[in-house]
Amino acid sequence: MTYKEKLAGIRQAMKREGVDVYLITSADPHISEYVPERYKCLAFTSGFTGSAGTLLITQEHAQLWADFRYFVQAEEQLAGSGFELVKLKVQHAPEYIEWLGREFRAGTTIGFDANIISVQLCDLLLEQLLPKSFKFKTADYLDHVWDERPDLPTAPAYLISAEDAGASVAQKLDAVRGHFKERNVTHNLVSALDDVAWLFNLRGNDVSYNPVVLAFALIGVDNAILFIQPDKLNQDDLASLNQNGVEVLPYESLQQHLHALTGSARILIDPKKSSYAVLKYFNDQSTIVRGPAPSTYLKAIKNSTEIANTRTVMIKDGVALTRFFKWIEENIGRIEITELSAADQLEAFRAEQDGFMGKSFNTIGGYGPHGALPHYAATTESNSTLQNSGLYLVDSGGQYAYGTTDVTRVIPMGELTDQERTDYTLVLKAMINGSMARFPKGTCGYQIDAITRQPLWDHAINYGHGTGHGVGYFLNVHEGPQTLNPANVPVSIDLGMITSIEPGIYRPGKHGVRIENLVLTITDTINEFGEFYAFETLTLALIDTRPIKFELLDSRHIEWITAYNQTVLEKLGPHLAAEELQWLQQKCKLSAMVSA
Amino acid sequence: MTYKEKLAGIRQAMKREGVDVYLITSADPHISEYVPERYKCLAFTSGFTGSAGTLLITQEHAQLWADFRYFVQAEEQLAGSGFELVKLKVQHAPEYIEWLGREFRAGTTIGFDANIISVQLCDLLLEQLLPKSFKFKTADYLDHVWDERPDLPTAPAYLISAEDAGASVAQKLDAVRGHFKERNVTHNLVSALDDVAWLFNLRGNDVSYNPVVLAFALIGVDNAILFIQPDKLNQDDLASLNQNGVEVLPYESLQQHLHALTGSARILIDPKKSSYAVLKYFNDQSTIVRGPAPSTYLKAIKNSTEIANTRTVMIKDGVALTRFFKWIEENIGRIEITELSAADQLEAFRAEQDGFMGKSFNTIGGYGPHGALPHYAATTESNSTLQNSGLYLVDSGGQYAYGTTDVTRVIPMGELTDQERTDYTLVLKAMINGSMARFPKGTCGYQIDAITRQPLWDHAINYGHGTGHGVGYFLNVHEGPQTLNPANVPVSIDLGMITSIEPGIYRPGKHGVRIENLVLTITDTINEFGEFYAFETLTLALIDTRPIKFELLDSRHIEWITAYNQTVLEKLGPHLAAEELQWLQQKCKLSAMVSA
Repeated sequence: MTYKEKLAGIRQAMKREGVDVYLITSADPHISEYVPERYKCLAFTSGFTGSAGTLLITQEHAQLWADFRYFVQAEEQLAGSGFELVKLKVQHAPEYIEWLGREFRAGTTIGFDANIISVQLCDLLLEQLLPKSFKFKTADYLDHVWDERPDLPTAPAYLISAEDAGASVAQKLDAVRGHFKERNVTHNLVSALDDVAWLFNLRGNDVSYNPVVLAFALIGVDNAILFIQPDKLNQDDLASLNQNGVEVLPYESLQQHLHALTGSARILIDPKKSSYAVLKYFNDQSTIVRGPAPSTYLKAIKNSTEIANTRTVMIKDGVALTRFFKWIEENIGRIEITELSAADQLEAFRAEQDGFMGKSFNTIGGYGPHGALPHYAATTESNSTLQNSGLYLVDSGGQYAYGTTDVTRVIPMGELTDQERTDYTLVLKAMINGSMARFPKGTCGYQIDAITRQPLWDHAINYGHGTGHGVGYFLNVHEGPQTLNPANVPVSIDLGMITSIEPGIYRPGKHGVRIENLVLTITDTINEFGEFYAFETLTLALIDTRPIKFELLDSRHIEWITAYNQTVLEKLGPHLAAEELQWLQQKCKLSAMVSA
Repeated sequence: MTYKEKLAGIRQAMKREGVDVYLITSADPHISEYVPERYKCLAFTSGFTGSAGTLLITQEHAQLWADFRYFVQAEEQLAGSGFELVKLKVQHAPEYIEWLGREFRAGTTIGFDANIISVQLCDLLLEQLLPKSFKFKTADYLDHVWDERPDLPTAPAYLISAEDAGASVAQKLDAVRGHFKERNVTHNLVSALDDVAWLFNLRGNDVSYNPVVLAFALIGVDNAILFIQPDKLNQDDLASLNQNGVEVLPYESLQQHLHALTGSARILIDPKKSSYAVLKYFNDQSTIVRGPAPSTYLKAIKNSTEIANTRTVMIKDGVALTRFFKWIEENIGRIEITELSAADQLEAFRAEQDGFMGKSFNTIGGYGPHGALPHYAATTESNSTLQNSGLYLVDSGGQYAYGTTDVTRVIPMGELTDQERTDYTLVLKAMINGSMARFPKGTCGYQIDAITRQPLWDHAINYGHGTGHGVGYFLNVHEGPQTLNPANVPVSIDLGMITSIEPGIYRPGKHGVRIENLVLTITDTINEFGEFYAFETLTLALIDTRPIKFELLDSRHIEWITAYNQTVLEKLGPHLAAEELQWLQQKCKLSAMVSA
């Protein structure tokens, strides 16, 4: 079935049911970023495979609303599909709501599948379009045209021990309950898959890259229910959950259970992470309280076990990256290296490491002009061969037992243009600016974002994506609540959080530069002006100093990069073979020489 | 009547009417910062004269909730009043609401005067305390104890010409109406006095420092009503308003008029700038739409006349300041100069300037330890004599026809400590960082705030106030919507806005440093990364370079300060007497020498 035929089928259903506008959102019933095959609705309907976007279908229009990161990819993938790209001004903003309000008359009916739309988005739609007399209808029109739609995943799941998690399930549940009084709630319904995984020390393989399991959790004052396919867990794990005060019920029984809740329950749900469908599961006696799930914040503050294990994992990841850098340098010009074969080789080096569980996301490895696409993923059609000049950008990460990595480096392949060197230096300067930031307790992500961008703004350069995101502990590579971006999200960067810092410069058709480390928020000092925090850089991977134009850096940036590469050498050295160590020493010596 | 007797009287009224908690907010029926005598309720009740704070009275407690700027002043002024200070963590945050919810039981009744509480604050109270079964009662208990409460001011008001304003009243009203469709409203009720003054090119003398007039405005699709005491305007002005399509009705007739509105009016009101009492004036047929008044944004974007006139006014203000700096230097040690006499002398120099209309706020002139009080205003009791050493901080401003100024300088009086020099240098560095910022269109105040603070954060130093505020055109020295502070206020710093940049360091008991300029947002460049803005510094007043520790500055900061003082010299030179010019040249030469 072609995309145009699917579109025709959806439009037929819309006509039949009196729906003027049909929205297809990119999510699953847990409002996930990475979704199971069954919920890859955007790719099925339009061919677009990006992880964020919205399809908007009317009898006249078929649009994909997507952000900056996907402009080039979307144009390519939508060709011939009948869909056209509408470029979002602001990442993740539902700008089509205003457009609908402006372009469509009162009485317009909007349809969507309530299972894959967040409560927050639905609230926004109703708030902005009900006053304009729009009507709403929930329905899944994909089922009409999706003949062999995949079932829900059945991969087995497992528990990790309290020792490896740094806390028992019972402890975590009690930490959540500690927020009930202040929030004035009796229950917390948790839909977000990574929150459920963190709460129950649970891991699995239901979606790509994120070691999570399809499950919901209902935490009460003195009980907790995990809604999951019971055959996913073995008897030992079920017994362990039971010992931690957890009842296990089938995934499908959530609706029935919520409907049967008695007493005047007050249930906390996170509007960003819960589907609108779930809201309707409750009976009239229950009161919904909207607010962030306590587990989202608790999960972001890494405990000492999580921090220690992540530090260990960073050494493993750094060793794999060192071998990869050396392999590239020694083989370029000797064998053919393509974007795909390089990514495979990098995965192979990571797979040699003890505890490697898989990639934490699909490697973004772009040579030359492909580096200018922030979310580029090589395909057999696009696959470039690496050459002896220009820049090669690699953004990659691993899932390990126990820890998650995410790192971006730009490898100079040979001769560089002056602009390539300038861009490399300025991005490095911005990354260092963020990494060196000292800031008062309570400082939010948007402030760190501004400090990171300043060196680029000074040169009238900017990038369209965020500066950084939270990172999980053997969990999702993107996790909240903290975020480094220009939007006014009032979440402070607190002690124990692990966050990426990844500024970039993109020159379409030429090259791209992004340099990314993960940093841990630590205490810096306490004085008469208050408590100040700083970042400890966790990532351990050589930053190549050859492209640097030192005259564009201040002395403090030069000191930082020299010290950083020295730390990489010291930490990775004991884990490298002699010739690898020698290679890395050479690289770091170079850095010390140039900066002296 | 003593403060304790007043308190007893209020408590008696509360008891009689079953009110458990009585709130006295710092505002008038227009939610002004500076209020007419009749509404100086905090000062009347407690003796506290700060421009922001809330009194909270129960049978057991009598509290002033005030922010950082007023901690020292409040402790002094409240002594013996029966009131105790509660220190706010965040400026302007109504933190007592959470405290009330925690400390008081269901059924508690809260009373307040609906005339002086904003809709926004009232919404917050209801939203957070209604779920806890609190009750609310509106009443003014001050009338019981305030025997000779002042009447509303009767000072005359006047219009400024469309030439001097840069736009006619009719043009401004049409600009407001241009937002009606998008906001889906039929009317806009404007309560904010500076918005009303801007809309009708109206000025007056009803409150200190702000040249505004007590008035409301109701703007409809094809009519506009100004509610003002008609005897405040002369016949010519009334005729001029009439020609611009404005009907003038008595100030007191607002309630009656709003109640009589027919048809299904949809009235836009700004919840931050409207009193809760006004909400009750409307009949059931009217719909209230909450949102910022279009005039607040339109007023902030200065037109070319306003910008040109402000530039002229900056020269006048700079000449007055130059004479003041010279006078201080030449007279210290020869005659006694006190904080009060210096402030008077500065006002006298400003008064020599053509078009001077008065101070734009009460001069903050603090010598030595008094400089550490960000909002210090010398009194006959506190008045210090300036000495031959240490720092003297002067934050002052003028109202001129046509333009408003606000400038802070710190004058080195002689020998300085190392810490005084370091603090002076770091504050200057922060101020320059903000002033030199280049930033993409859409950048918000919180981002400029972070870039300004960074040099201080690097040294684990911070300040408790905002970095800057909008400034009016012969209007309020504090105006919105833009603000430079850490809070997540999503207002961008747009072309034509005039904003202050005023970082500081305060060492209680020692000294304070704050350096402040006003800047205009201008276009910088447009390129493949978007449109970038920058600041043009408007303020023209020597920044003394003698205290600077140049080793703490980067070369770009040194270049900035050298160029700035050169600009001051060039712009002020033609307006100075020969010996004044010679004095200023000497100061600027010094700067050039030290930095070379």
